Amino acid sequence: MNINIRKAVQSDCPAMLELIKELAIYEKEPEAVTVTLDHFEESGFGEQQVWWAYVAEISNPNEFDLPEALYLPTGKAIIGFALYYIRYSTWKGQRLYLEDLLITEKMRGKGLGKLLFDQLIVECKEKKYSGMAWQVLDWNEPAINFYKKYEGLNMSDEWLNCMINF
Amino acid sequence: MNINIRKAVQSDCPAMLELIKELAIYEKEPEAVTVTLDHFEESGFGEQQVWWAYVAEISNPNEFDLPEALYLPTGKAIIGFALYYIRYSTWKGQRLYLEDLLITEKMRGKGLGKLLFDQLIVECKEKKYSGMAWQVLDWNEPAINFYKKYEGLNMSDEWLNCMINF
Repeated sequence: MNINIRKAVQSDCPAMLELIKELAIYEKEPEAVTVTLDHFEESGFGEQQVWWAYVAEISNPNEFDLPEALYLPTGKAIIGFALYYIRYSTWKGQRLYLEDLLITEKMRGKGLGKLLFDQLIVECKEKKYSGMAWQVLDWNEPAINFYKKYEGLNMSDEWLNCMINF
Repeated sequence: MNINIRKAVQSDCPAMLELIKELAIYEKEPEAVTVTLDHFEESGFGEQQVWWAYVAEISNPNEFDLPEALYLPTGKAIIGFALYYIRYSTWKGQRLYLEDLLITEKMRGKGLGKLLFDQLIVECKEKKYSGMAWQVLDWNEPAINFYKKYEGLNMSDEWLNCMINF
């Protein structure tokens, strides 16, 4: 397995959106993904950038029988990503907010999520963010156990998420 | 009471930071506010803007015995604000994330929070955000009841907040 963790570029977007849809299907909510490729690209690489990401790129995808849609024109493939934006805490200043950490089903359990997560910690330190934040579903034990290995983790169940869709 | 709800400008920052500190003292965590005025201004009005806000400005602050620190050079005063950033949902696209909705203690209970909150809904529609999201502490009944008046509200206790400070 030849894995390269690197910053996402615009040509990664179609494969990334495939991974997003794969997860939504797995979670039985395929119709919940309403974002379009155009809007996804514009938000990540347009004039006002609102998301950033690292991707996990594999150079020998044929050996793993991966979906065609994950292939790049180079013959390599995107098998996962960590997508984040910058949140602003009025107490702590700029923080990295990890929105999605995602590995394609066939490639799970190989430590790739950890490679991406560790890269985000490096990013935080380089950019001098005051911290890193994310959310996890309270029933998602494997994910909770994964995060618990990190020193300094603070996990809170005190907050309710509120949302209005337009 | 002469209230004007308008977009925050850089010269509002000292008063806004005062309001942030006032709330932290009220919550018995004054030392938790580590953000500096410089960093706060840079994040809101620098080259890479990461927060936006609306302020509630009062033109007759003398009548309410408000702290000096909330006054602007114009003689008006900032008595509250709603600060937000843009979050990116990989399912729904760009959304407004309300980080802080805050009214100085003496001016609460007068409907000013609602003025700010309603302005954010207008902002979402103008900017074509797919929704608006925020969090509320699960024991904060007055706030929860306030939000419940809004049509289409979705409130979820399924998520844990995770954080690592650097």
